[in-house]
Amino acid sequence: MSPTGAEPATLYGYWRSTAAWRVRIALNLKAMAWTSRAVHLLRDGGEQRRPDYLRLNPQGLVPALAIDGQLLSQSLAIIEYLEETRPAPALLPADAAGRARVRSLAQLVAGDLHPLNNLRVLQYLDAHMGAGEAQRQAWYRHWVRVGLEALETRLARDAETGRFCHGDAPGLADCCLVPQLYNARRYECPLDACPTLLRIEAACGELDAFQAAVPERQPDAAPAP
Amino acid sequence: MSPTGAEPATLYGYWRSTAAWRVRIALNLKAMAWTSRAVHLLRDGGEQRRPDYLRLNPQGLVPALAIDGQLLSQSLAIIEYLEETRPAPALLPADAAGRARVRSLAQLVAGDLHPLNNLRVLQYLDAHMGAGEAQRQAWYRHWVRVGLEALETRLARDAETGRFCHGDAPGLADCCLVPQLYNARRYECPLDACPTLLRIEAACGELDAFQAAVPERQPDAAPAP
Repeated sequence: MSPTGAEPATLYGYWRSTAAWRVRIALNLKAMAWTSRAVHLLRDGGEQRRPDYLRLNPQGLVPALAIDGQLLSQSLAIIEYLEETRPAPALLPADAAGRARVRSLAQLVAGDLHPLNNLRVLQYLDAHMGAGEAQRQAWYRHWVRVGLEALETRLARDAETGRFCHGDAPGLADCCLVPQLYNARRYECPLDACPTLLRIEAACGELDAFQAAVPERQPDAAPAP
Repeated sequence: MSPTGAEPATLYGYWRSTAAWRVRIALNLKAMAWTSRAVHLLRDGGEQRRPDYLRLNPQGLVPALAIDGQLLSQSLAIIEYLEETRPAPALLPADAAGRARVRSLAQLVAGDLHPLNNLRVLQYLDAHMGAGEAQRQAWYRHWVRVGLEALETRLARDAETGRFCHGDAPGLADCCLVPQLYNARRYECPLDACPTLLRIEAACGELDAFQAAVPERQPDAAPAP
């Protein structure tokens, strides 16, 4: 599947990591062959902090993608790489203005909202800020609400919004939106104020590429309680 | 200066916003004409939360860039747009692997480190988590240390690192690095463990494009105490 005819890509991820999930969707949308290498974020203090993983990715975060003889990190950088080396189907529009819009929507989720609610941050709030369950939940819901409401405002307003975040084909912004909504539900964040996001999520949910990427269908998923 | 021969770009920013600063460097490196529109983040509860600004950018964050008849948001999306519409001088390498590396370095700063230490987050810690000065400082320094040490490890290790973050010309990752180091000093974060970052910062500091972008030289800068 790769330009060099080399081995399939290997995704270092975790079933519930929204950042890894974005990359799974992108790999699937591009119909690429890939294998999963689980990095368990909670086991033994976090496998992402083990020396062998830190040698691969000094940041100690997932995802990382081994592809074309190199190791890439940061979900949006990985997806941009896939877009440049496997252009079809496109996950970014063809025009610069459209690309800026989609990147901006993606970065609103991946660069402003998600980093605040990442596992390491919640762990810090517990360990060093004395946050209890209620304060941690309030923190989580606050940043989800602020981020998703801004996203809803933009998507509801913009003429470029279609069946998906940009037009009628799924792309980079949708790869970011869907995992974030799953996480919002997991933390019981109200989503009533976000009808456009929910409509787009439903459209994504009809596609095999999105269905195959959900956490519960990954090999490292915990059994349902 | 623009492809359409239209008006110079207008940057909505704040002198001390590291995200706006990234865009200032990029505009300067590309020798573009641009004007500044200050959005005072602290005055009257924050001008970024005023209805007229929220109409432009519903996220209520700076920067935003009015250019070519549209309004762009999110610093990295803005710089990618500049790169696509004004390709010379290039701020990203020509090869896909190099581009993935530079984007990953930029996103480590802009997408993982900075969002945790943004003004709105520090304000939340005060207002809702009961954080005092010491806890807020510890929070700030923790995320700076974690982020910059990972960045140092990568830059010190990678053969692609040159006089700048990638090779011997300044680019997107340098636009992110320099403002972050300024902020680290402002909060008295130790930087002894980051000699490679400091060396690259010094190289950037020799260039007019970086010198003209420093906070103290912006029209909305507060007078020195």
